[in-house]
Amino acid sequence: MKTEITAVIMAGGKGERFWPKSRTNHPKQFLSLTGDGETMIQKTFKRLHGLVEADHVFVVTNENYMELVGEQLPEIPKQNLLSEPAARNTAPCIALAAAVIRKRFGDAVMLVLPADHLIRHEDICMDVLSRAVSAADEGENLVTIGITPAYPETGYGYIEFSRSQDAPAGVYQVDCFKEKPDIETARQYVESGRFLWNSGMFAWKASTYLNAVKQYLPDIYAGAEKLEAACDTDKFQTVLKEEFPKMQSISVDFGVLEHAERLYTIPGSFGWDDVGSWPALGRVAKTDTNGNYRDGDVVTIGTKNCIFSGGKKLIAAVGIENIIVVDTEDALLVCDVDSAQNVKKITELLREQGRGELL
Amino acid sequence: MKTEITAVIMAGGKGERFWPKSRTNHPKQFLSLTGDGETMIQKTFKRLHGLVEADHVFVVTNENYMELVGEQLPEIPKQNLLSEPAARNTAPCIALAAAVIRKRFGDAVMLVLPADHLIRHEDICMDVLSRAVSAADEGENLVTIGITPAYPETGYGYIEFSRSQDAPAGVYQVDCFKEKPDIETARQYVESGRFLWNSGMFAWKASTYLNAVKQYLPDIYAGAEKLEAACDTDKFQTVLKEEFPKMQSISVDFGVLEHAERLYTIPGSFGWDDVGSWPALGRVAKTDTNGNYRDGDVVTIGTKNCIFSGGKKLIAAVGIENIIVVDTEDALLVCDVDSAQNVKKITELLREQGRGELL
Repeated sequence: MKTEITAVIMAGGKGERFWPKSRTNHPKQFLSLTGDGETMIQKTFKRLHGLVEADHVFVVTNENYMELVGEQLPEIPKQNLLSEPAARNTAPCIALAAAVIRKRFGDAVMLVLPADHLIRHEDICMDVLSRAVSAADEGENLVTIGITPAYPETGYGYIEFSRSQDAPAGVYQVDCFKEKPDIETARQYVESGRFLWNSGMFAWKASTYLNAVKQYLPDIYAGAEKLEAACDTDKFQTVLKEEFPKMQSISVDFGVLEHAERLYTIPGSFGWDDVGSWPALGRVAKTDTNGNYRDGDVVTIGTKNCIFSGGKKLIAAVGIENIIVVDTEDALLVCDVDSAQNVKKITELLREQGRGELL
Repeated sequence: MKTEITAVIMAGGKGERFWPKSRTNHPKQFLSLTGDGETMIQKTFKRLHGLVEADHVFVVTNENYMELVGEQLPEIPKQNLLSEPAARNTAPCIALAAAVIRKRFGDAVMLVLPADHLIRHEDICMDVLSRAVSAADEGENLVTIGITPAYPETGYGYIEFSRSQDAPAGVYQVDCFKEKPDIETARQYVESGRFLWNSGMFAWKASTYLNAVKQYLPDIYAGAEKLEAACDTDKFQTVLKEEFPKMQSISVDFGVLEHAERLYTIPGSFGWDDVGSWPALGRVAKTDTNGNYRDGDVVTIGTKNCIFSGGKKLIAAVGIENIIVVDTEDALLVCDVDSAQNVKKITELLREQGRGELL
């Protein structure tokens, strides 16, 4: 029997660093940041075409975003949209999906993908994902997609990897996960050739993941078992609301993968970017000859390496460099590219000032 | 008999360098650029309080702006609002006002003031204007208000002046007008102590000005005589529409003052600024402790020496310096302070693109 292939799109993020386009009720993954009309979650779903059937794709998201997911991905059956009653980071999120998948599809492989990444070379990515599925299907393997680093990025976690005798061809053993490094360490990582970016994309069998959770996060596993039992019964929502919030909030990297054996990585290089903040658009999206990213009605004079994200209103830029300009109905952001990480200070300030309508 | 004192506010300018707040149909002089709710022309009118009666104040403006003047300055009698049927620079503009003033008030003194300048120390300014009126009233004197230069500005014209035996006390003789200098020349001017900024504010008797026009611009004088004759008759508008457009387009400086004898200047220092473009607001208006000028709902993080002019929408600035941000209903400008002179390139571009609705 051919292995069932499923996919889990994690779409619970808030994407605050894309304020003011990204809002509490309409975060980054539901936006078309590249200006082609396709939202990031739509791109993520589309990417799976040919590898995973639409009715084998699951989305795990915040309750508030269920409607948006339904609107943007009408192809996915409603019973595949799973809502988290509380934010509990990635380990419980994937456990919830794994429980449902094991119940419905038995020992299927699951691809786990964040909803809000961009990929320039979709074909190469598909090839890597296929190989990850095969490697996951071969046994009790936990497979992460690693990205050959293009430059010493300090905003990503890194995977230290090495050759392994018992790994399938093109698959490497993960030695260690490294948190976001400082720039000097990042340079050393890149130069050594022994490190990959941690993409947050994974492949494993539902049972492999649940077994690992059973071993390293037994409390979460206890909840997941109850969810699996209740899946596709009329008690599911009740059990979900009761069990999920009790689960420990912990990432899959920290809670499961750092401890796991049989942990592998497949290195890929396909123009991946987690699009963590506005400057990423200058890297991954199309820019003009002066390096300006333009989404909207933009006129420039002597302007270089800027990011413009507007709407119908004309944006006129004169003599500026490395500036991010984001215009929305009720808020305008003007930010130096090198200060993009501080956009969250604005949202914090607005929260303190009780101006929640702008968040 | 006490001399009648009149004032002429010149309000025909287009103020394109204040785009996008300033529009063809609503230019700079009708805007409240300092964020206190008072427009520049209203400030100019208010400044005259105590020196010139409201019914002795005249406004010369473009036909399109007549309604705006009426709305913003309801205190001025309608018959004192003079519309130019065509743009003909300052010499004909002042000749039109002088003709009407001589007809109505005989040999009155007229103060001539641009509608769109800002003055920080209004009391000191009033004192200088009073002295200019007295000097103008003493004889056939043409009196300009000179400004003690605060720094080597290259955007202003300069007046070279010297002591004169036959001038009244505190009044100096004008030796020469100088066009906008380069920075090196401007430095020499300022260091020499012999130069003042040319403010474009003048005082003279209507008859003195008209006599000078008769001598140096006889064709304009011929038109002015006809206007004077028709003034306050039902033929006035007809004569105005016929005579005014025929007048030579020339500035009062170039057409009259450069040739004139009995030309004097009173040096003043009262925080004057012609507010020629956005960066001027950083000089003349109130700024926060980081040197940011804020008009609107503005939140900043790590932001210095910027100019913010918005509306109701929140403007959030992060890590920027020396940037001008002007937000309006249908256009947003983001401009480096040092490139402010290039804002007109945007308006030229929009004109070429046939996007007149944005001008």
